[in-house]
Amino acid sequence: MRNSMTERTRPRRVPKRVRHDRETIEQILDEAHVAHLGITVDGCPHVIPTLHARLGDLVCFHGSAASRTMRALAAGVPACLTVTLIDGLVLARSAFHHSVNYRSAMIFGQATPVSDLDERRAALEALVERLIPGRSAEVRAPTERELRGTSILTMPLTEASAKIRSGPPLDDPDDYSLTSWAGVIPLTVCTGPPIPDPRLALDIRPSPVVSEWVSRRC
Amino acid sequence: MRNSMTERTRPRRVPKRVRHDRETIEQILDEAHVAHLGITVDGCPHVIPTLHARLGDLVCFHGSAASRTMRALAAGVPACLTVTLIDGLVLARSAFHHSVNYRSAMIFGQATPVSDLDERRAALEALVERLIPGRSAEVRAPTERELRGTSILTMPLTEASAKIRSGPPLDDPDDYSLTSWAGVIPLTVCTGPPIPDPRLALDIRPSPVVSEWVSRRC
Repeated sequence: MRNSMTERTRPRRVPKRVRHDRETIEQILDEAHVAHLGITVDGCPHVIPTLHARLGDLVCFHGSAASRTMRALAAGVPACLTVTLIDGLVLARSAFHHSVNYRSAMIFGQATPVSDLDERRAALEALVERLIPGRSAEVRAPTERELRGTSILTMPLTEASAKIRSGPPLDDPDDYSLTSWAGVIPLTVCTGPPIPDPRLALDIRPSPVVSEWVSRRC
Repeated sequence: MRNSMTERTRPRRVPKRVRHDRETIEQILDEAHVAHLGITVDGCPHVIPTLHARLGDLVCFHGSAASRTMRALAAGVPACLTVTLIDGLVLARSAFHHSVNYRSAMIFGQATPVSDLDERRAALEALVERLIPGRSAEVRAPTERELRGTSILTMPLTEASAKIRSGPPLDDPDDYSLTSWAGVIPLTVCTGPPIPDPRLALDIRPSPVVSEWVSRRC
């Protein structure tokens, strides 16, 4: 599936870096642990870090039902949700061409509050699964009171684009004869050893869901 | 040094997580590899990932002088720059209390274009040093033409705040008797082995500045 371009998602500066295929956008959303949500309050942009999860064609996020941001979003103000993964440092032969390899996705639109309790439950489950797949089945499910006290919002992925930089540095032709090392330093997110809650009983060990997820990333 | 609170940086929801001391804000800016910059264009927020660096009391970032975003910022539209570091996954005994440990800094204000060539050079150097300290001395310095073709902007750190979550999950009192493992999975950014530019001469090895930086993080 391919998103059609809009005035906001049309590439302007480096078109070769921009993608509109849904698969790329979904992969970026599904890998990132944090999104940055932009809304305009009294004429001023606010950029707020938030957890997110994808639910099919939607991206969802949550917050306290009393939060000013969530209330503004629920009222339908325009929003922009951006997630960025940094894949590597790009070390060029010139200061000017230093960069990073990255994958980012940017979603424009309005957020819609999720009112149905079952849909709220599904969204909260997706947010927990975004942390560690399989985790939600191992913990106490949300109560109706918890679900009602949370504001859950979704944005459709219809007006979205991705931007990707990958590969080696691009130096000026004359600089390729310089003797500075040039290339990419890959960056990944790694896990350290799990830190048990100090209030955890000593005989409770991480479940296979948790320990296998951790061991794949350290 | 402590920033005074403004209407925009006053904590609203969880005051214990908010800090206004400059040292905390600077540490977060100095550790993050990417910032998310928010501006409002035609009434719609845009959240753009960008490289940033701190120059004393300022945070700087750059872009093509032809970019629409950079031109809007240079014209003085309100901006918000947010950086977020994810330190760990917080696994609670209930789905509802799952979270992440994070440190974020949010800076409100207007951006000021840097016109002086020496100041532009200093900013570009800071941006390269933000990637790997010591790198800028090892590569070709920017030419006057490169410096003139780049738009470099700064924002003061005067209206800024940090938000931090750390420590174990906070479960509901009744849930501490559940048998799910609970605790924190630490997350860090790690480096992989440097990937040489395919156009690099075979006998050029990474400098100590590069290889020591990499070895401290893998």
